[in-house]
Amino acid sequence: MEIPVIRSILEANSNIAGELRTLFTRHDILALNLISSPGAGKTSLLERTLRELQAEFRMAVIEGDLQTDNDARRVAATGAKAVQINTEGGCHLDAAMVRASLEHFNLAELDILFIENVGNLVCPVEFDCGEDDKIALLSVAEGDDKPEKYPLLFTLASALVLNKVDLLPYVDFDLTRATRFATRLNHSLAVFEVSCRTGQGLNAWYDWLRTRRAAKKST
Amino acid sequence: MEIPVIRSILEANSNIAGELRTLFTRHDILALNLISSPGAGKTSLLERTLRELQAEFRMAVIEGDLQTDNDARRVAATGAKAVQINTEGGCHLDAAMVRASLEHFNLAELDILFIENVGNLVCPVEFDCGEDDKIALLSVAEGDDKPEKYPLLFTLASALVLNKVDLLPYVDFDLTRATRFATRLNHSLAVFEVSCRTGQGLNAWYDWLRTRRAAKKST
Repeated sequence: MEIPVIRSILEANSNIAGELRTLFTRHDILALNLISSPGAGKTSLLERTLRELQAEFRMAVIEGDLQTDNDARRVAATGAKAVQINTEGGCHLDAAMVRASLEHFNLAELDILFIENVGNLVCPVEFDCGEDDKIALLSVAEGDDKPEKYPLLFTLASALVLNKVDLLPYVDFDLTRATRFATRLNHSLAVFEVSCRTGQGLNAWYDWLRTRRAAKKST
Repeated sequence: MEIPVIRSILEANSNIAGELRTLFTRHDILALNLISSPGAGKTSLLERTLRELQAEFRMAVIEGDLQTDNDARRVAATGAKAVQINTEGGCHLDAAMVRASLEHFNLAELDILFIENVGNLVCPVEFDCGEDDKIALLSVAEGDDKPEKYPLLFTLASALVLNKVDLLPYVDFDLTRATRFATRLNHSLAVFEVSCRTGQGLNAWYDWLRTRRAAKKST
């Protein structure tokens, strides 16, 4: 009984995600779905990015959390528009939740839409939210074996942001091992070693965003 | 359609978990279900505990992972019996998986059974595996807001192991904030501040295990 029901949920989700993708493309919006474990630094990456690129792009954020609007408030403090989705215990965002939140945005005034998913390396990966790219984040405090143990995210992501590299002297994390495994799963994965705390490495991430947004606009 | 199906899955799970609980009690086995984000240190806590208490208790581990047997191999290197469950993409262990793995153990020769769940702060919390206690782990590198954002685990857990306290000088983590919120959700939560890397704080955790095992034996 379980498998057909789950399949039909995923199919219904894919249909809505397809509609969203068409909508985002019509408005030249680059949509990015940020996925990581809890506490890897998705909100910190957004805070930095929203502040440092605000003169270049019109950006907004859909925040997914089980409870609280802490992250939406952090993001809104940068001046960017943020909408909170509370999943009430649900382990991932889906396309219908994203569609419902769009009424709060004026799509004609957006260049980049960030979707910050629920902190979870498993379930969010299976639910397409109409994004152009999934962005995987991994903190070096989590251990270098994560691409090996949670391969689907790293297979499907366009970019891997290795965050908290300022902690490298204090943890056992082999950057080469983590990167080698992730890029073996996914030859086109762009990898960024950054610290959202110090700002280290973020320029390469910003350049990637510029390139992706330009590509989206020219389609 | 979705809700009744999920409810029946949870009911079926609870029935099997009840059977397991009876079985563990008959054998005086303390069963503990370890739940955390990926990379919070579940396997490291087990490696330490298995080595340092091996003269006192007969212990074994059920390892849950989406892929790989990395953690079972780390645990087996301590000399303890370990069985790997690969969920093939599944986001949590359930009681049926635990029951199926029990054929690999001689329950008459066990004092403590650790169930290391899939790294995920959400889904594992909903699936009773017949354990006496859920143990929540949280690494200080993940941020002090996690009890607030993922409250169900901290509400249901008997103990919270705050791991990687050796990183406190290098991260923004307010121990008081994390602990205050978690214990407000759950007045009987035992909190241990530890570093599985340095060994700091582990004696209090071992004492708690001794007390829980003694209580179990006397029931």
